[in-house]
Amino acid sequence: MKGYGIAVPGERMGWIEKDIPGPGRYEALARPVALAPCTSDVHLFENPMMPAERILGHEVVAEIVEVGEGVTHVKPGDIVATGATTPDWRTCEVQDSLPQNSGGTNAGMIWASRTDGVFAEYFIIRDADMNTAVIPEGVTVAQALMTGDMVTTGFYGAELGEVSYGDTVVVCGIGPVGQMAIAGSVLRGAGRVIAVGNRPHTFELARYYGATDCVDYKAGGIKEQVQELTKGHAPDCCIVAGGNAHTFTQCLDLVKSGGILSNLVAQPEGVAITPAQSGRWCSHKTVRGGLCPGGRRRLERLLAMIACSRLDPEKLVTQRFYGLEKIEDAFALMMHKDDSVVKPIVYVNGTES
Amino acid sequence: MKGYGIAVPGERMGWIEKDIPGPGRYEALARPVALAPCTSDVHLFENPMMPAERILGHEVVAEIVEVGEGVTHVKPGDIVATGATTPDWRTCEVQDSLPQNSGGTNAGMIWASRTDGVFAEYFIIRDADMNTAVIPEGVTVAQALMTGDMVTTGFYGAELGEVSYGDTVVVCGIGPVGQMAIAGSVLRGAGRVIAVGNRPHTFELARYYGATDCVDYKAGGIKEQVQELTKGHAPDCCIVAGGNAHTFTQCLDLVKSGGILSNLVAQPEGVAITPAQSGRWCSHKTVRGGLCPGGRRRLERLLAMIACSRLDPEKLVTQRFYGLEKIEDAFALMMHKDDSVVKPIVYVNGTES
Amino acid sequence: MKGYGIAVPGERMGWIEKDIPGPGRYEALARPVALAPCTSDVHLFENPMMPAERILGHEVVAEIVEVGEGVTHVKPGDIVATGATTPDWRTCEVQDSLPQNSGGTNAGMIWASRTDGVFAEYFIIRDADMNTAVIPEGVTVAQALMTGDMVTTGFYGAELGEVSYGDTVVVCGIGPVGQMAIAGSVLRGAGRVIAVGNRPHTFELARYYGATDCVDYKAGGIKEQVQELTKGHAPDCCIVAGGNAHTFTQCLDLVKSGGILSNLVAQPEGVAITPAQSGRWCSHKTVRGGLCPGGRRRLERLLAMIACSRLDPEKLVTQRFYGLEKIEDAFALMMHKDDSVVKPIVYVNGTES
Amino acid sequence: MKGYGIAVPGERMGWIEKDIPGPGRYEALARPVALAPCTSDVHLFENPMMPAERILGHEVVAEIVEVGEGVTHVKPGDIVATGATTPDWRTCEVQDSLPQNSGGTNAGMIWASRTDGVFAEYFIIRDADMNTAVIPEGVTVAQALMTGDMVTTGFYGAELGEVSYGDTVVVCGIGPVGQMAIAGSVLRGAGRVIAVGNRPHTFELARYYGATDCVDYKAGGIKEQVQELTKGHAPDCCIVAGGNAHTFTQCLDLVKSGGILSNLVAQPEGVAITPAQSGRWCSHKTVRGGLCPGGRRRLERLLAMIACSRLDPEKLVTQRFYGLEKIEDAFALMMHKDDSVVKPIVYVNGTES
Ligand SMILES: [Zn+2]
Ligand SMILES: [Zn+2]
Repeated sequence: MKGYGIAVPGERMGWIEKDIPGPGRYEALARPVALAPCTSDVHLFENPMMPAERILGHEVVAEIVEVGEGVTHVKPGDIVATGATTPDWRTCEVQDSLPQNSGGTNAGMIWASRTDGVFAEYFIIRDADMNTAVIPEGVTVAQALMTGDMVTTGFYGAELGEVSYGDTVVVCGIGPVGQMAIAGSVLRGAGRVIAVGNRPHTFELARYYGATDCVDYKAGGIKEQVQELTKGHAPDCCIVAGGNAHTFTQCLDLVKSGGILSNLVAQPEGVAITPAQSGRWCSHKTVRGGLCPGGRRRLERLLAMIACSRLDPEKLVTQRFYGLEKIEDAFALMMHKDDSVVKPIVYVNGTES
Repeated sequence: MKGYGIAVPGERMGWIEKDIPGPGRYEALARPVALAPCTSDVHLFENPMMPAERILGHEVVAEIVEVGEGVTHVKPGDIVATGATTPDWRTCEVQDSLPQNSGGTNAGMIWASRTDGVFAEYFIIRDADMNTAVIPEGVTVAQALMTGDMVTTGFYGAELGEVSYGDTVVVCGIGPVGQMAIAGSVLRGAGRVIAVGNRPHTFELARYYGATDCVDYKAGGIKEQVQELTKGHAPDCCIVAGGNAHTFTQCLDLVKSGGILSNLVAQPEGVAITPAQSGRWCSHKTVRGGLCPGGRRRLERLLAMIACSRLDPEKLVTQRFYGLEKIEDAFALMMHKDDSVVKPIVYVNGTES
Repeated sequence: MKGYGIAVPGERMGWIEKDIPGPGRYEALARPVALAPCTSDVHLFENPMMPAERILGHEVVAEIVEVGEGVTHVKPGDIVATGATTPDWRTCEVQDSLPQNSGGTNAGMIWASRTDGVFAEYFIIRDADMNTAVIPEGVTVAQALMTGDMVTTGFYGAELGEVSYGDTVVVCGIGPVGQMAIAGSVLRGAGRVIAVGNRPHTFELARYYGATDCVDYKAGGIKEQVQELTKGHAPDCCIVAGGNAHTFTQCLDLVKSGGILSNLVAQPEGVAITPAQSGRWCSHKTVRGGLCPGGRRRLERLLAMIACSRLDPEKLVTQRFYGLEKIEDAFALMMHKDDSVVKPIVYVNGTES
Repeated sequence: MKGYGIAVPGERMGWIEKDIPGPGRYEALARPVALAPCTSDVHLFENPMMPAERILGHEVVAEIVEVGEGVTHVKPGDIVATGATTPDWRTCEVQDSLPQNSGGTNAGMIWASRTDGVFAEYFIIRDADMNTAVIPEGVTVAQALMTGDMVTTGFYGAELGEVSYGDTVVVCGIGPVGQMAIAGSVLRGAGRVIAVGNRPHTFELARYYGATDCVDYKAGGIKEQVQELTKGHAPDCCIVAGGNAHTFTQCLDLVKSGGILSNLVAQPEGVAITPAQSGRWCSHKTVRGGLCPGGRRRLERLLAMIACSRLDPEKLVTQRFYGLEKIEDAFALMMHKDDSVVKPIVYVNGTES
């Protein structure tokens, strides 16, 4: 079979020829129905420590082809949603309520990072009973595709931020994860939601998902602009879904004493907390962040919200491609940060189902 | 001044003549702009232990007329929302995080229950700085009027029920509080919401507020009908906003092991938990209930949600009256449980502002 | 091999001859080092629905004899603690944070209830990696034996009750679970702890574990006696670890508005909530209860507390027997509710290790 | 009357002559029975922005001398404990559950910072009903004196850290606050508690309060030493109760993914989060910190724990002085960081009561 991934680490992507893997106990062999590239695929490609010949991709709607021993919930022919995180559920970390960490910090995410990913003719799903959900009636393939990473991650930002009725929330970075952080905040009862971004069509999308105000970070300091909008009333929660270390520290300044900074990205350049800012650590501000939750129940819950029309994540999709080979074009869009992109997807069968 | 209240306890309502009260420290004297009668006013009237000459009413939008010593947030002329609960904030119960109980169980609610209420030309607001919110731009008088009891109570049902992303919620009783419990559940991320009632126009309203399914309790057992709808998948949360003891025990049966029964009403006839049901107390089912939260921040948060178009509680209003004296007609509608009623309101000034 | 269990359901216990079971995937074959009978073993015996030839017992310290495929944490020769609950960790209930319910309400407990138990020469441990903990240095066999049910259950009572610094806690029923509920309350910061029981030596033990006051339920109403002790200051939490329906309703009356009734037992006769009491469901009182948590991390955490001298559960042990055949005598003590019994144990090897 | 405070900001302490203040509404005039200087008094003295003639001190056991209008809970002659934080309870911040912040970030603390403190013949207690607790039988003056700042602050560290049964906790800085963080962790169920300090007598005291291990920060890196002790098992919680920015970042490295860094001090020099460390913000590590809770119920709860022998904070006292004028000597000990000091106290009456 062929898969699309790292040909030369940090230098070149390409098509890789591998054997079709066989499903072990609790695993399923699946073939993609629809795929989406993700910024973190680009990060993996750019990471020189990654091995060559690694197939990338972790966002997929799949058809089950064959199931391993012990699989009872899904069967060949099922069309399922699955998650960027597919934890091993038999770990101490699960017992400590953090499946994302099963096997190590954030090691619940294995596709592309630790094993071959989903940009291929076939791929393996770990613990398929626990990590997939059959797509319910009324949910489109594109909606289900967005659920496994974009929705669960953005919503997790609102959960970490403990957004409550009437909260004022700032969302920095309004790519697809930020958009879902906006929607997820509204669906936890937020009042005012301030979206911080730059591209006009993402502002429009943010308003669709419930943002009440938009701030252009190129038009001035995030902090100053937000403070002017809120007349100095500090936001209850800041969700960091993009930007750099300065975005992070501005959010730390902005959030109210008693509020939460919820972080969904890594700040690769480090963060310098100035002396003036250090008082924050004694000022009832909470900082936390992490990787999206996964698992069958998480997927079922998010899909139920879509089926009940609480949310339509398909609006995130800005480009549609048809045919597995087009993952190359979709990936290129992500890599070159084409201005029009929120989320490109590939329908593998050449049709939208 | 005149007020409308209990002429003969349990027998006759009537107009009562009293002196205009003077505001003490932290208090404000106010006059109503809009009023709504509530089922609990009817219960107070029917209670033979209540004193005669008690003015009823606790749902009001008011204009501040005069403020007592120490009041700094509101001033004469302000149009404010206020709450059914107007706690004294200097109590041990507030320090124990339960302002509803300040001064005794549920004693945070004083209007009509413990002092004269708001169905009058003038009335007193306890601790006006802490218990009122100036109505923000974009919020109507009727919306603000619904905030102080209907919205805060219904939403509290969803809060007590810890409704989360994708939960299946059953709301029993879809009068105005149940309607707001539906809206409040959706605004905490509920997936499926099953409304249990009987009147067609309340089913329609429930769907407007986000119910996905409607169950008529006169068409069969609540439990059986819900189980059929969910194919035996037990709901995560049941909110009891009406009905009798049997409604309560059916909900206790229905809710999943690990779920919550959130109760917003008293069951005056007692509740018999059968032997077969008693295992529930060892089955990870949680039961809790209580009186709505109040206070300025609560009001501000709910009004922010309305101002941001997350919610329109004005749809609850089924009858509009004009002029203070019409509180008599509005109250009669509530007392005789007119089939068309969800929530009647009275615009005191004779216009809608 | 032989095992001790139900010869004739509801009528006669006896020794049963069975084949030594073989460990399947993730399972371990073990032999008991020490055993304890439990009240719930007696309930199972008395239940006429139970099958004949069922070996009873779920409290055990064990030596691993043989491990099935996929077991990596424990190996033959290890001496391990294990739990009354040995969940299957690959279930939706685990994903919903309730491992006790994996496979159905309280179905995480399988020994004796659903499969053969541990009163035998050999027995099977489900998912041994996830459900056992190697006993750390400084912890005795008897201490480890008490961990798997008595400590985890009693402590769970304090957890469900959300006991916090300075709380007043009432513990009704001071058999071994109630004793551990006392210790667990103190280890969550309780101030006053009122133990309700009857036998003098259990009062003495309760004081050892941190009770500040003792109430004899035969000397008057629990409610009246507690209220006299606290001068009407309602307790923050009542933990029901024994008694009948009347005990339950008195605790529901006693607990403060805003407090929690934490229930650890089934009330087989049902519970009648009187009209006067029904207001509780609208009075910010929370009722909840359930089965003890299990799993390796739970065991490791509790054993760490013992190793660090926070707790010595060995004081629960009132009778010691030596040799597997003595489980018969230990069980008889439990069944006939010998007045001296808190917890009898059997050292299988004939020595205390 | 005379008081001890800032004569020349940053340069000289001295005795200041002022009029005896009169208690306003809800206030009480009190005279100290016992006093303790605190590190934060030293910081205020060293702060050049502080006004001259400011009386310092916020740790006091007091006798009520006169009460203002509206005070009903305490009366002249009562001996009361009070807190470093004496919030105004009629604020929006209280409604948002953060009384420490009433009136602004950490503005619930007024003594010395915003008004004259307690090192004087007489001083004013804000909202005496809400901010004092009558000392219960069995609690010594010294114990009550430690409650208002040292106990509530240290215990808050364990609360912010959500310490639970069996947790491994690291406490950095074992002055009096760190000692109480150790005790508070044990009283929330900690297993292993690792104390990081340097002075032998504080290690001894840490063991008394429940530390299982002691690490000398002068003997090597905190991180390396702790990791060696725990064999790489990351602690569930790190409480920072002393040290510098490097202490903070080492704790951030140490704490497990999924764990909490609970910070009780300001890091005046700022904190540089290196690139390698920045991943933490996406690694399920939570950072939070803040000022101690106050209020009558908080005091009553902590005093109940002392009265019930759960805790003896008097062991913190290393030096005892007699007579108000000796506050000068006690303050000097704190300022010059005498090696023997944990907590010096002054009995104002010249006797220990
Ligand atoms: Zn009402
Ligand atoms: Zn201090």
